[in-house]
Amino acid sequence: MSEYIEHDKCGHSVGMVEKKFFNFAEPPNEMCLESGARLGPLTLAYETYGTLNREKRNAVLVCHALSGDSHAAGYYSENDSKPGWWDIMVGPGKGIDTNKYFVICSNILGSCMGSTGPCSIDPRTNKPYGPNFPLVTIGDMVKAQKALVEHLGIKRLLSVVGGSIGGMQVLEWCVRYPESVISAIPLATTTRHSALAIAFNEVARQAIMADPNWKEGNYYEGPKPDTGLAVARMIGHITYLSDEAMRHKFGRRLQGRENFSFHFDADFQVESYLRHQGNKFVERFDANAFLFITKAADYYDLPSQHDSGSIVKAFSKARAKFLVVSFTSDWLYPTYQSKAMVQAMKKCGLDVSFCEIEAEWGHDAFLLSNSRLTSLIKGFLGRVVRETNKEKNAL
Amino acid sequence: MSEYIEHDKCGHSVGMVEKKFFNFAEPPNEMCLESGARLGPLTLAYETYGTLNREKRNAVLVCHALSGDSHAAGYYSENDSKPGWWDIMVGPGKGIDTNKYFVICSNILGSCMGSTGPCSIDPRTNKPYGPNFPLVTIGDMVKAQKALVEHLGIKRLLSVVGGSIGGMQVLEWCVRYPESVISAIPLATTTRHSALAIAFNEVARQAIMADPNWKEGNYYEGPKPDTGLAVARMIGHITYLSDEAMRHKFGRRLQGRENFSFHFDADFQVESYLRHQGNKFVERFDANAFLFITKAADYYDLPSQHDSGSIVKAFSKARAKFLVVSFTSDWLYPTYQSKAMVQAMKKCGLDVSFCEIEAEWGHDAFLLSNSRLTSLIKGFLGRVVRETNKEKNAL
Repeated sequence: MSEYIEHDKCGHSVGMVEKKFFNFAEPPNEMCLESGARLGPLTLAYETYGTLNREKRNAVLVCHALSGDSHAAGYYSENDSKPGWWDIMVGPGKGIDTNKYFVICSNILGSCMGSTGPCSIDPRTNKPYGPNFPLVTIGDMVKAQKALVEHLGIKRLLSVVGGSIGGMQVLEWCVRYPESVISAIPLATTTRHSALAIAFNEVARQAIMADPNWKEGNYYEGPKPDTGLAVARMIGHITYLSDEAMRHKFGRRLQGRENFSFHFDADFQVESYLRHQGNKFVERFDANAFLFITKAADYYDLPSQHDSGSIVKAFSKARAKFLVVSFTSDWLYPTYQSKAMVQAMKKCGLDVSFCEIEAEWGHDAFLLSNSRLTSLIKGFLGRVVRETNKEKNAL
Repeated sequence: MSEYIEHDKCGHSVGMVEKKFFNFAEPPNEMCLESGARLGPLTLAYETYGTLNREKRNAVLVCHALSGDSHAAGYYSENDSKPGWWDIMVGPGKGIDTNKYFVICSNILGSCMGSTGPCSIDPRTNKPYGPNFPLVTIGDMVKAQKALVEHLGIKRLLSVVGGSIGGMQVLEWCVRYPESVISAIPLATTTRHSALAIAFNEVARQAIMADPNWKEGNYYEGPKPDTGLAVARMIGHITYLSDEAMRHKFGRRLQGRENFSFHFDADFQVESYLRHQGNKFVERFDANAFLFITKAADYYDLPSQHDSGSIVKAFSKARAKFLVVSFTSDWLYPTYQSKAMVQAMKKCGLDVSFCEIEAEWGHDAFLLSNSRLTSLIKGFLGRVVRETNKEKNAL
């Protein structure tokens, strides 16, 4: 996507950054999970950009989606060809301005990018957890993030921001720790997965579990279930785009050929793109982590988890100012789902701004360069700071 | 789907039917395919319902979709629990009234339900063709149907009817054999696959080809690639429904449990449904046939194949009266695609009726009981008969 690349080259970056690790040091050095299981010792990989101010009131927590990591912005070394996954939004003068805000991004619990997950070593066996890793929920992920934020000495976050599964974490923060969240920006997300979203995740999981190399999750000493994981990722990529996005990006154009192969080669560009995405993904991601995180997303159900099925009751606990954003062509978390949460927030008398952005890129839109999204986030954070300062002065 | 079952019980059926076989007997007993390859000897499995009239002018050809077969209506034996796949539409007094019309349905070339396909015996090796089966196109399928229709002594079909890939065959008939088609009813279909539709097919194919039992298509002497084919079918079933259909049918209801498993069991009904559909499918369908038919659908491109990319030029060859039907919640072949073909037909001065039916069942809607669809088809065929008789009398 050319917009993305251009923006990277022109924009200013936070520069060189470093991945840090937070180990839950407090005895018993473990966490009680929603499932009832206990998990420990726990580590969260995280990065920070910008400077925490003296009052520790300028912290913005960025929550990543399914396959993301703590590397939201900047570069690890001068040789890096690509910056962090949200470098277009996080940096000096950008939507989330690191000249003003102290930005934190941590890898979610259950992932494979430095935080404790199914490929981490289980201290009881000295082998990777694999299928014995306990299922962590979105709530568990947020609970771990809260410990990290406290460890950094921050009592209240100026904002929590994230899209997709990151957006679920944002919503969970607001309801679980209302006193710790001044504002929240859930993007392209939902309070609970629809049957359609569950269906896509389930088929992706089945593709992984059908791979004989998966071996019920015990594959760390042998070949990995790469073919299954590649198919799973291909399914994901279909849901991240849209009919319109695919039509513009690929249409029926052939890939490197003038005529059909009359065989099962990748004739069309869209086939070639999906195969490429699938093959690239297996180099960096763990199949078990994919299973665990998608299941956590499917389980997420803000209304049910926080008060007997009522979305209004769930949000009645929240105190944050909200900026809710959906995208016209997102059919994974369509606008009607964002509107439902906005209505519930309004019924609770919360300060909510909502915007449906016209975008043809489907669910992926929240990750792509979009001047409307950038200015919305920038303006919203500025207003939150002004209003918070006013309230503080009035006291 | 309860509507379906109720209708089956109440409706009248064509009764006991028999599968017949048409062998291409003319030397050289083979067909030259669009790819340039030759295929033979050829067999088509087919069924007929009703009686061909003396003038042989009441024949209606029904074209089936991806996983269908020649068994469109009736029962093979008294022990059959289910009738043919379109029994709600084909039968005495039904939408396609077998008291009036002689209905023909044949299994498509490349399938595995009695017609020549990849699991048929290759006479050169005395083993199943497997991956050596030549890729047959929608055009090839129609060419084979034409031979069957001629074999039955029919020069002109009163109508050609079909949905999805069956609808592609309908369109192909009208352009390839304009003098042989009096009317045509393409349902829930398109003149060419979108990138999105290709993407879904490609991921389904990848799931099959990722199964180690697939063995490049040479699996007929060993275990079949059932897990891959099951995943492929699950992907298909997602595309046949819709967000709304899934919400009504499953929502977030759990399957046979009150709480989450916190494991990778099928917690949700939608997961259980998909697994069931996948497992059921592998009992009746051949994985290679799935690969070949989906590829034929992806290749289908009426505008490109019939005149340098112009859909209007393609339809300028057609002579049939058309009834085009789309369904509001069909996101595999959305209404805008039907509208584009209707516009092109109108530009060619063709007699076209178009209806978008309000239906929540997604792409599957064309197969389900729908009184609006039934009365549209019934009324259209009645009008065609009246007008054709009038024209004949005027001569």
